[in-house]
Amino acid sequence: MGLIEPRPLPSVLLVGLVPIATWFIVRPLLEPIPAIPALYSSVGLSIFAFLASIYLVPALGPTFIKANLKGHDLLKVYKDDLDIPESMGLVCASIYILALILFIPFAFSTPIRDQALAKKAQEGITVVEFPHYQLAVYLSSLLSLLIATMLGFLDDVFDIRWRHKLPIPIIASIPLLMVYYAEHGNTNVVVPLPFRVLLAELINLGPLYYVYMAMLSTFSTNSINILAGINGSEVSQALVIAGSIIVNDLLYLPWPIDFRLPLHLLGNKTELEFGGVWNAGMAYGSRQLVERHLFSLYFMLPLVAVCLGFLYHNWYPARAFPGDTLCYLTGMAFAVVGIQAHFSKTLLLFFIPQIFNFVLSCPQLFGLVPCPRHRVPRFDSNTNLLHPSKAEFKTSPSKLSILVLRLLSTLGLTQVTEHPNTGLISEATNLTILNVFLLRFGPMNEKKLNQVLICSQLAGSGLAFFIRYGLAWLVYDGDRR
Amino acid sequence: MGLIEPRPLPSVLLVGLVPIATWFIVRPLLEPIPAIPALYSSVGLSIFAFLASIYLVPALGPTFIKANLKGHDLLKVYKDDLDIPESMGLVCASIYILALILFIPFAFSTPIRDQALAKKAQEGITVVEFPHYQLAVYLSSLLSLLIATMLGFLDDVFDIRWRHKLPIPIIASIPLLMVYYAEHGNTNVVVPLPFRVLLAELINLGPLYYVYMAMLSTFSTNSINILAGINGSEVSQALVIAGSIIVNDLLYLPWPIDFRLPLHLLGNKTELEFGGVWNAGMAYGSRQLVERHLFSLYFMLPLVAVCLGFLYHNWYPARAFPGDTLCYLTGMAFAVVGIQAHFSKTLLLFFIPQIFNFVLSCPQLFGLVPCPRHRVPRFDSNTNLLHPSKAEFKTSPSKLSILVLRLLSTLGLTQVTEHPNTGLISEATNLTILNVFLLRFGPMNEKKLNQVLICSQLAGSGLAFFIRYGLAWLVYDGDRR
Repeated sequence: MGLIEPRPLPSVLLVGLVPIATWFIVRPLLEPIPAIPALYSSVGLSIFAFLASIYLVPALGPTFIKANLKGHDLLKVYKDDLDIPESMGLVCASIYILALILFIPFAFSTPIRDQALAKKAQEGITVVEFPHYQLAVYLSSLLSLLIATMLGFLDDVFDIRWRHKLPIPIIASIPLLMVYYAEHGNTNVVVPLPFRVLLAELINLGPLYYVYMAMLSTFSTNSINILAGINGSEVSQALVIAGSIIVNDLLYLPWPIDFRLPLHLLGNKTELEFGGVWNAGMAYGSRQLVERHLFSLYFMLPLVAVCLGFLYHNWYPARAFPGDTLCYLTGMAFAVVGIQAHFSKTLLLFFIPQIFNFVLSCPQLFGLVPCPRHRVPRFDSNTNLLHPSKAEFKTSPSKLSILVLRLLSTLGLTQVTEHPNTGLISEATNLTILNVFLLRFGPMNEKKLNQVLICSQLAGSGLAFFIRYGLAWLVYDGDRR
Repeated sequence: MGLIEPRPLPSVLLVGLVPIATWFIVRPLLEPIPAIPALYSSVGLSIFAFLASIYLVPALGPTFIKANLKGHDLLKVYKDDLDIPESMGLVCASIYILALILFIPFAFSTPIRDQALAKKAQEGITVVEFPHYQLAVYLSSLLSLLIATMLGFLDDVFDIRWRHKLPIPIIASIPLLMVYYAEHGNTNVVVPLPFRVLLAELINLGPLYYVYMAMLSTFSTNSINILAGINGSEVSQALVIAGSIIVNDLLYLPWPIDFRLPLHLLGNKTELEFGGVWNAGMAYGSRQLVERHLFSLYFMLPLVAVCLGFLYHNWYPARAFPGDTLCYLTGMAFAVVGIQAHFSKTLLLFFIPQIFNFVLSCPQLFGLVPCPRHRVPRFDSNTNLLHPSKAEFKTSPSKLSILVLRLLSTLGLTQVTEHPNTGLISEATNLTILNVFLLRFGPMNEKKLNQVLICSQLAGSGLAFFIRYGLAWLVYDGDRR
């Protein structure tokens, strides 16, 4: 068994990015104090996190292999069964969490504020420091992320069966829930217009709200984890989702310039406004909304950074595997910002491909169709192409299974093989979005398949923005804060 | 290789303790509301943590062995090289941290306070709920504990060399330091009487105080880690230290009864007072001191619980090994309470055997005397007794080494062997407290040696209390808050 050569790194990276990152970190101390000084520090720390990730992942690879954290790439032909380091999401997770911890003094400490207050009042919304109670919220989020990382790594080390690991994210969300409770978090939900006839405008979900939060983290974690198996798939999903959240957050910040999108053309009552120092775009002047989206931004920027650094080594042909650790980390990070910054419904819109994949997988997850240990596409070593993989019926399928498979087959989401003699379904392609792509667009190589996945995720995010800002007025009234 | 049989558990444990623990958790909701309701919840959760630890450690043993987390007991003769699960401190750590997370609503939430306020004013100091800013301090402590656990486990998995792992606890203390900074923590230190001529009564250490905090966690973690190697040694040290901290904390609580120790006989100016609902013993009526020691108590009670549960399986002959994970966890827990509850000097007094062992180890740690990979005593399989292990000089020792060894030998702390021809030192017993015990008291079996260690730790704590409350007036004036 050989050791894979790490992908070479351009040395210009270090020389070019270190001064830029340093400038961003130092910038809040220079005149004139920016409106949101901590945002600069966050960008600076994120660039350092990117560098740490891109340099440490290959450097630590041999250590992981030595500790038996390694795997073979099932979709490649390597001469002598190359060992590829597995669970390297742990490196990303450690860098990410360390960056978030080091960010605490920038976001919650006073020296910078004292300087700012010494100046004359700034114009527009200024978020120099988070209010003090937010520190507990921030720390509980860190705790949840750290527990998710730990559990993801334990999952990699102990190889927990998937039925047992479904509820694991609930454990990681306990700190979120406990602090939410201790902070008397809001458990009200705005009721969509069509249901207001039956219910009030606001209903208090009470304990159910906690169940909802726990479910959200379970969903976001597992849905990324089951859409996995080809080089780069886990981390590129995470990148697109995190990128979409960042774009959404930017709509709520006090930009110095102010422009509008002509959304009335879509029938929307209010225009989509970006920027403006006083009303801060979609925040409509609400300091609380600006703070919430800053909170989200501070978690997403370093996440994008470590994921980008990792993707460089995880891109086809992969030199490092993420393991469950990365899926748990990213899934939990999304749940954290969705819950703490109160945009969980918008968040779910960014998961359209994952929701599709999850719903499609249900017949296999719940035993209607046999579920093999791996559902990744089948690799043809002669053509270097991937084909849809198949699940084989060992016993004759039940009536319900037949009905479901016929329906999915009609929709073009699976392809069934019938036994030549009996006419019974003997095989069906595995019910994952990756196999659907291969069915619809024909066999393709692994890199191409991942690119298709990225495009579908981008298209999903485009749709999400359209629904959120173009159609939300259909089900909710007023400006959707 | 066989699998070791776990030690049997009396079933009365579960039947007996579950109702007691439940009562403690429910008690704060019952009339009359106690003065410190969260203390009851803490005791209840600790009993549950004890049960979880004593039942889960043997239950998860086979899983650990399957994941290659196993070791052989070097100081025993087992028929077929029995595998013993290693790193099982991870189980204790997980239970401990989960218990502390579940405790958040009891210590920081209002429903209980609202009930209490509805009653007429209580008599004496009542700590119904911690002030809100303490939640951030509590959460940062949890983060540090979790990072210490994670790093300890990574140390077990990746087997980091000791020179590299010395600074690891500093990483774990970063959340403590960051939040301390963001909370504008006090960095003043009271100067001892003899130095007040040179300095002021209070000096502000500034950044040095952060260095001191980081050093404290490094010391408490590593000093437990290097006094290890025989069955039960790591966890029994932790138990005695935690027990001493608990006794010290209890001196500051508002007990309904009030009694004094005649300390003036020792020349002390103030009597040692326990209890009293108004002045709360040594707290002399300071609500802040009561809160600090409650904070410490809330971290120490579940720690004692999980350690007790683990000791049952780690006691001679051990059925489970703690791994570095347990040393990191306990060391960090002590550093956390010492720092956050502001009694780091008292804390260090409870580490007398560890300080002795560390100072004694220095010639080996810093290369004056050769340091073999393991310094545990040597096992004689014929007599089943332990003898002092020896470090061998491969080259002739330097003059400084000879001087140090002659000095230690005169003090009876090592035994040197001279080469019969040259008269040069060729061997010396390893410089650990365990080898000193074996030198002073003669060879003994492993169980006995651990009991001697426990006795020395208890004697150290006794001395610590005497210094802290009997002699402190020599170097500090006033009541020592």
